[in-house]
Amino acid sequence: MEPNLEEAIEILERTPRTLRMLLDGLSDPWLRASEGPDTFSPLDVVGHLVHGEETDWIPRLRIILADGESKPFTPFDRLGFRAKYADWPSDRLLELFARLRHENLAVVRSLRLDRAALERTGAHPALGRVTLAQLLASWVVHDLGHVRQVVRVMARRYTGAVGPWREYLPILDRG
Amino acid sequence: MEPNLEEAIEILERTPRTLRMLLDGLSDPWLRASEGPDTFSPLDVVGHLVHGEETDWIPRLRIILADGESKPFTPFDRLGFRAKYADWPSDRLLELFARLRHENLAVVRSLRLDRAALERTGAHPALGRVTLAQLLASWVVHDLGHVRQVVRVMARRYTGAVGPWREYLPILDRG
Repeated sequence: MEPNLEEAIEILERTPRTLRMLLDGLSDPWLRASEGPDTFSPLDVVGHLVHGEETDWIPRLRIILADGESKPFTPFDRLGFRAKYADWPSDRLLELFARLRHENLAVVRSLRLDRAALERTGAHPALGRVTLAQLLASWVVHDLGHVRQVVRVMARRYTGAVGPWREYLPILDRG
Repeated sequence: MEPNLEEAIEILERTPRTLRMLLDGLSDPWLRASEGPDTFSPLDVVGHLVHGEETDWIPRLRIILADGESKPFTPFDRLGFRAKYADWPSDRLLELFARLRHENLAVVRSLRLDRAALERTGAHPALGRVTLAQLLASWVVHDLGHVRQVVRVMARRYTGAVGPWREYLPILDRG
């Protein structure tokens, strides 16, 4: 299916609020839970999303519109948030994410992207040719994937605690 | 890990708000997306959670406290919501879920469950002996699992739309 711009924005504008409702005021054992070394905690996910707002989605969108495939995207540093946002409290980080997302969606709207714009192409450093429509769809799916990661990481704190119910709770063992 | 009652409540009280932020006002293609016949749409998930508030978690908790293992739980009808909440608009259903969850957590708090209470046992019709602590942990994980399901179902509307990005987006193909 083609991503419809308004539909994509419906999700993109909800993610900061969803994460705020899920995480704001939550105690540290939940916020800092992870699935092992080098995996993301819920708080890491918010840092990663903030860093994506700053360095990934909109810069790539602008490259597609300005340079097409002639200028490959800068590779995105998945862990670039660690140095920048170490020790930030969750409420500030959630607030920053909300502000940046709001600004970035204002940019998207201001560009009045039509079908021709959505078909413009760029060069992903690893994946090759991608379209602007694919970038927008990936932005949406990336958001949803990280919400999924947050709830999975939290759920798995209780893998042992649920006892025999485990077999009815696929979040504990699948994906 | 043992579920700490206050920590469990932190998650349980957030789920209605999280789902409201994620779903309220969302257009029908998102709310009614599913993974095929007999799978849950985001709206179905809310109906299922409402039905669980009404017929599953608290009634079972009360059985454990009143009857222990002598009275097995009534099996939970996963699809019991379909007849009851067919055609309910999303805002009413989300509001009902929030109200019921609020009331049910007031019940949980009013019981002042101590360690001895958390160790009380009941008889699950399929899983056998379970403890009250396991029931509370499962309630939390069940919530998180359904949030995961909602975002997965929505993400998969865009499986084709993301193009080559698919390999970086595990929500589209795993769990």
